[in-house]
Amino acid sequence: MKHVLIAALIGTSTLLASGTVSAQAKPEDVIKFRKSVYTVVGWHVRPLGAMVKGQMPFDQAVFLKNAEIVADMASIAPDAFAAGSDKGAETRAKPEIWSDAAGFKKVMDNFQAESAKLVQVARTAKDVDAVRSQFSALSKSCAGCHDNYRTK
Amino acid sequence: MKHVLIAALIGTSTLLASGTVSAQAKPEDVIKFRKSVYTVVGWHVRPLGAMVKGQMPFDQAVFLKNAEIVADMASIAPDAFAAGSDKGAETRAKPEIWSDAAGFKKVMDNFQAESAKLVQVARTAKDVDAVRSQFSALSKSCAGCHDNYRTK
Repeated sequence: MKHVLIAALIGTSTLLASGTVSAQAKPEDVIKFRKSVYTVVGWHVRPLGAMVKGQMPFDQAVFLKNAEIVADMASIAPDAFAAGSDKGAETRAKPEIWSDAAGFKKVMDNFQAESAKLVQVARTAKDVDAVRSQFSALSKSCAGCHDNYRTK
Repeated sequence: MKHVLIAALIGTSTLLASGTVSAQAKPEDVIKFRKSVYTVVGWHVRPLGAMVKGQMPFDQAVFLKNAEIVADMASIAPDAFAAGSDKGAETRAKPEIWSDAAGFKKVMDNFQAESAKLVQVARTAKDVDAVRSQFSALSKSCAGCHDNYRTK
């Protein structure tokens, strides 16, 4: 069973490793992975925003956990834009992601930096005011990509 | 722009927080989240298996990073099975997940424990032999769920 499972998980598709050979994956698989990463991001950003907006009581442990997952996803997000994944399935990713690689790297770096900072701030946050400014910074980093590299 | 983005991210949907109020989400959203979590899991398990099977050279840093993401996803996976998400969109999740909640919790706990152990082992792994046994344990924990709580 164990070996069957391993074989099933590995399948016959091209082998991948985050940060190293994700460019070898099939474009449609990269796009599916990309959407999955951002679905997980969205799921965890939502309670952060709700707490900052006062729509949900501030809970430091919950805020931190959600912020950590966002930062984890930010750390793997670049792999979700492997070369060649501009088409192959429905996607809102703009061609500029690949034609303006330097600019895109900048917004990605920003997403990673701001989400990592939010984790740091959340670790010792006594109340929602302690995370408000850094959540805004993260939010701005999201917008930096959504505004320029994603179709409406 | 910042506020527009925050509003867009939060939307008008029910508010969620991993581990606390995910049960309030719409079933179809939970199912989408669930599939996303497991897509991210699969993406990162694949290179682990490939290294263990010798289909890819062992790289400790890459192995560790991938194992960490799997463990991160395991930590949020229970939220992806919120009550009521047995239907609402196409899903392979069996009704037993909810009717046999204790049994399902056991396989989930196992997934979390084995993936966390793999991270620990990977931290100091000098070669692939150091991670082989724990990767098998993780793989077995995956099978424990796939065999009993997911349709073929």
